[in-house]
Amino acid sequence: MAKKIPVGLLGATGIVGQRFVQILENHPWFEVAWLAASDRSEGRAYGEAARWKLKTAIPARVAQMHVSPAKPDGAPKVIFAALDASIAAELEPQFADAGCAVITNSSALRMKSDVPLVIPEVNPDHVKLLECQAWRRKSRGFVVTNPNCSAIGLVMALAPLEQQFGLETVMAVTMQAVSGAGYPGVASLDILGNVIPYIAKEEEKMEEETRKLLGRLNGSNIQPGAFGMSAQCNRVAVEDGHTESVSVKLKKKAGPEEIITAWNEFRSVPQELRLPSAPEQPVKYSTALDRPQPRFDSDSGNGMTTSVGRLRPCGVLDWKFTVLSHNTIRGAAGAALLNAELLKAQGYLE
Amino acid sequence: MAKKIPVGLLGATGIVGQRFVQILENHPWFEVAWLAASDRSEGRAYGEAARWKLKTAIPARVAQMHVSPAKPDGAPKVIFAALDASIAAELEPQFADAGCAVITNSSALRMKSDVPLVIPEVNPDHVKLLECQAWRRKSRGFVVTNPNCSAIGLVMALAPLEQQFGLETVMAVTMQAVSGAGYPGVASLDILGNVIPYIAKEEEKMEEETRKLLGRLNGSNIQPGAFGMSAQCNRVAVEDGHTESVSVKLKKKAGPEEIITAWNEFRSVPQELRLPSAPEQPVKYSTALDRPQPRFDSDSGNGMTTSVGRLRPCGVLDWKFTVLSHNTIRGAAGAALLNAELLKAQGYLE
Amino acid sequence: MAKKIPVGLLGATGIVGQRFVQILENHPWFEVAWLAASDRSEGRAYGEAARWKLKTAIPARVAQMHVSPAKPDGAPKVIFAALDASIAAELEPQFADAGCAVITNSSALRMKSDVPLVIPEVNPDHVKLLECQAWRRKSRGFVVTNPNCSAIGLVMALAPLEQQFGLETVMAVTMQAVSGAGYPGVASLDILGNVIPYIAKEEEKMEEETRKLLGRLNGSNIQPGAFGMSAQCNRVAVEDGHTESVSVKLKKKAGPEEIITAWNEFRSVPQELRLPSAPEQPVKYSTALDRPQPRFDSDSGNGMTTSVGRLRPCGVLDWKFTVLSHNTIRGAAGAALLNAELLKAQGYLE
Amino acid sequence: MAKKIPVGLLGATGIVGQRFVQILENHPWFEVAWLAASDRSEGRAYGEAARWKLKTAIPARVAQMHVSPAKPDGAPKVIFAALDASIAAELEPQFADAGCAVITNSSALRMKSDVPLVIPEVNPDHVKLLECQAWRRKSRGFVVTNPNCSAIGLVMALAPLEQQFGLETVMAVTMQAVSGAGYPGVASLDILGNVIPYIAKEEEKMEEETRKLLGRLNGSNIQPGAFGMSAQCNRVAVEDGHTESVSVKLKKKAGPEEIITAWNEFRSVPQELRLPSAPEQPVKYSTALDRPQPRFDSDSGNGMTTSVGRLRPCGVLDWKFTVLSHNTIRGAAGAALLNAELLKAQGYLE
Repeated sequence: MAKKIPVGLLGATGIVGQRFVQILENHPWFEVAWLAASDRSEGRAYGEAARWKLKTAIPARVAQMHVSPAKPDGAPKVIFAALDASIAAELEPQFADAGCAVITNSSALRMKSDVPLVIPEVNPDHVKLLECQAWRRKSRGFVVTNPNCSAIGLVMALAPLEQQFGLETVMAVTMQAVSGAGYPGVASLDILGNVIPYIAKEEEKMEEETRKLLGRLNGSNIQPGAFGMSAQCNRVAVEDGHTESVSVKLKKKAGPEEIITAWNEFRSVPQELRLPSAPEQPVKYSTALDRPQPRFDSDSGNGMTTSVGRLRPCGVLDWKFTVLSHNTIRGAAGAALLNAELLKAQGYLE
Repeated sequence: MAKKIPVGLLGATGIVGQRFVQILENHPWFEVAWLAASDRSEGRAYGEAARWKLKTAIPARVAQMHVSPAKPDGAPKVIFAALDASIAAELEPQFADAGCAVITNSSALRMKSDVPLVIPEVNPDHVKLLECQAWRRKSRGFVVTNPNCSAIGLVMALAPLEQQFGLETVMAVTMQAVSGAGYPGVASLDILGNVIPYIAKEEEKMEEETRKLLGRLNGSNIQPGAFGMSAQCNRVAVEDGHTESVSVKLKKKAGPEEIITAWNEFRSVPQELRLPSAPEQPVKYSTALDRPQPRFDSDSGNGMTTSVGRLRPCGVLDWKFTVLSHNTIRGAAGAALLNAELLKAQGYLE
Repeated sequence: MAKKIPVGLLGATGIVGQRFVQILENHPWFEVAWLAASDRSEGRAYGEAARWKLKTAIPARVAQMHVSPAKPDGAPKVIFAALDASIAAELEPQFADAGCAVITNSSALRMKSDVPLVIPEVNPDHVKLLECQAWRRKSRGFVVTNPNCSAIGLVMALAPLEQQFGLETVMAVTMQAVSGAGYPGVASLDILGNVIPYIAKEEEKMEEETRKLLGRLNGSNIQPGAFGMSAQCNRVAVEDGHTESVSVKLKKKAGPEEIITAWNEFRSVPQELRLPSAPEQPVKYSTALDRPQPRFDSDSGNGMTTSVGRLRPCGVLDWKFTVLSHNTIRGAAGAALLNAELLKAQGYLE
Repeated sequence: MAKKIPVGLLGATGIVGQRFVQILENHPWFEVAWLAASDRSEGRAYGEAARWKLKTAIPARVAQMHVSPAKPDGAPKVIFAALDASIAAELEPQFADAGCAVITNSSALRMKSDVPLVIPEVNPDHVKLLECQAWRRKSRGFVVTNPNCSAIGLVMALAPLEQQFGLETVMAVTMQAVSGAGYPGVASLDILGNVIPYIAKEEEKMEEETRKLLGRLNGSNIQPGAFGMSAQCNRVAVEDGHTESVSVKLKKKAGPEEIITAWNEFRSVPQELRLPSAPEQPVKYSTALDRPQPRFDSDSGNGMTTSVGRLRPCGVLDWKFTVLSHNTIRGAAGAALLNAELLKAQGYLE
């Protein structure tokens, strides 16, 4: 077997950082070689610095690794990042400047015009934006981003519709899991027996990221999708899995069978390239009356498959349906990892 | 003090039946004089037959009353009903035939063309439909209904907008409390850490009831509201209080201050008549970023006030906002009681 | 009406601080005149500084008051405190030194030999320890404490047994509400669908405080209760109300009726003095098979009554039963307030 | 590969029945060949009759099987049962009479003197009781039972202590998951934000089953364990995994290292025989301060390992600790399956 590519993790101790550690264990191409987190964690063993919150055990090898300072010196050339936006805005350019491939879940640079915001099944061609990045020209470093956890499930469900029928209007209301807010994140006193109808900046992210993801690469520019878009975001007492009630208007009329077929048969570059983390079926329609549900469907396709259900006519737009996606796998660490696999397959990581 | 009107309860042991018992305790006009429930409960003391699930203690006087057979013989002339739809379809006409005023939370007869579906603040004039009821002409009995628990909060928030600006389109996604499903209702295994994106017949009820409530009385007919309407209904792990993410398009353009004023200053017949259960302020706008929330706002106005918040522009329609309403008070027992108070004030109950 | 005594709140913005504000609203004897919290809140209006987490609205008058620095200068002579232990250890002596009556829910000084740890129904005579305090002799200031939220319900249930039958052994396992950890306190990711079998220092507090509370005042000393005692503490997904499974061995044999009567008829100094916050019935036995339960019984007696149920023989000790007590009312702010009322009645507050 | 033994499931549609289907999929020795449930399900495809509530998908082969009448005719010779006690009392003897090996999770016959109540790691020798069963002598059929879901975790933790140090006294307080009550089981209105301090007959089962399991086989009799025993049972808002706060007094003094070693090194017949469902480590001690927790530890050893933690001195008995065990795997279906594997290894199933 070929030698694995050493990768570093920025923000390794948080919930998404932990997911990175989890899904990179036994990865065929990548190997965690370096971990960085906040100053508080620096120098400590990862197993002590991270308050591990996943159900699988912390990988023994990584638990013993020491947490490095969050600086490019000594870091590997491939970096996964899961930082708070304000810190990412400062650190990610430093790493790119220093020649690192920064594959990040952070929101800081997602909407920057020369930064690709990518879902490999949806807009793999946007990766070409990298050629416009100043970092790339200067140091061969670059930054590639994946979308917000609430946008990604929605866009996975929308992409087959956009491709086959064209989207005119999209309305989405989310019911988002608490793990999306990190750890400690949402206080139990705020969410037990409750719904919080507000997540800071989430609706804005959903709306603009959806348009960029479904936009068209035009030379050095992304022309955002032209459809109408409105999102409302709520937090609910669920651990993992964002549920969304969606309504759409299509440009070309389509019957329910066509739509369901469009979802179930949707395959793309990651499936063609057999990328290691690509789900066999990226979008899966459930015929059960009351599915998808976070408890049962979040882990579908190892958390990489988006579940759709309840397709029925909408009294205002054309169709309404429910979307569910795992928010810290497909919606965060898994999204970045699939991006990295795509970049590797395309020769961007050597 | 004048003698109170004796009332009977059909479906007295269920969750909504219990709410009737609770809110009728110490009511200035009505007094529970008769209780009926399923055969299983018949002949037992109410305190034993009902598995009391409310936080206030079961009223001692009612606890000792015996559960009667669900037949008109011996029942008082004013009946509150909280029956399953299939049973209501059979029993409510029997009671009306026998001369009873049946004021019901059941869904069975809500959409019948000669049965008023009433929210006293919204469409008190629809009560006049009673004159068209065959029961009324025959025996002086009649049936008046209140809407579904998910429709009522929505319509309370929509009515001021419809009256002042006109509604063109309404889209609503609900996150509904488990008490809406009665007891035992939703199994804990189904809802702990979960969202269920399906409630049988709920979306249909929301859509058609909203149109009937905001419709116009035209002689012996209700002309339903002509706006576009789409609802999606979800169940969440909340005890009491339905939260809804709503988007609307108005006929006449309106700014946020006008809309908020329309809500906060909305007053109607129940407030003018000072009906005992009428909330001082039927619709209340919260300026907090993250409200309303079921935990904090469900009990507003003794559970009779509808809370609204988060008004902001909608990328597709005109405005989006969050609505919250207590589902077993304003959404069920309190709704029927306010209907009864309106009927009493209008001379229908003697 | 006599003029109310102005009181100050130390730690006013936390969950217990908020409870103080709530239960002092409209108090017949005391009035909030001064609020202090951490530096971060200083100078801001209380309504902005406190993230209000109670279901009743924040009192308007207090919301507009400004948060003062946590220093004795300018503070009233009666201070309620709800501080983290480490801060209390520093601040409370300063306020007592400066002549303030510090009535505190903080744990810092509870076990100090000259500081009374008091439940007015249980050991009102321990207040006399005040005469031994150096602060008292120097400045007339003093410190009185109430027990931990998990100890207080237990001791309320034990006191009637200790008085009538004598305690030989006590074993208690708690299932504690998240509000006991303050705000933000327990992360939702830690407690949704989970039990945490550990609360730092809680078992130690329960054991030593229970013994001090049921101890005997001996001149300037408390001789701790001599019974065997063991506690295990767990956190569960409940908002308010600590539930405890308790087993006891009594010195004098007693039948179930005697024990239940001892609980139901337990009255003490607060009831005799008709202290404003004293519950009519401090301990209430429920005969229902499956009670007490936090959802239904936490608010009993405005949160000041301890609920007991399920008395049955224990296969190892004599009897086992379930205890429930509201953890932020009787277990915190209400406990301190009742202490203050006792001190007022005894002439300690002028 | 040898042909698999065809097995039947009695009570196949319930929560435990579903677990049987799940853990028997791809079992090396057994294969589901026959399913029976209540009359309501009879004749329907299993996939339709069962409301599948597990996170893994329903096995396709079994989903298509038809549900048979619950009668011995046509049933295989090896039967797993997960029936309500009252139905089990009637049906299990019929199957045993007809020559079936009935390996049951039902409680009906557990305490019958000639019926083995077995945990293979704890009392495999009790299987010999089978020779005393009338069924066995008559038809070669027999009944073997496993304990209640709350007893099994406790006994797994107690067995190494009993074997090495002797048990004098055991006190246990449980916090039990809702899946233990089956489906629909506990109503969400009863358990959201709540603790229910009562589970019908559970404490009695825990006490008597623990004594029988740790008892000694004496010819045709089990001499129950002579230690003192007391249990209190509570229901909490957890999906899977019973947590227990336990205190013990040992006959022979033991230090914490000895006790932890006794747990961690506990191995028994299933490990020696390498039974397919035997966990490598039956009891696992966690050194983390706040573990075990149901969210993280229920699935340990595929749900067959009992987790123990928080060993510390008890103020009344010798030691206290926390035990956690998966209630529908090790506590139900997995328990019966391990019993079946033991019986197969001992030649009882041919």
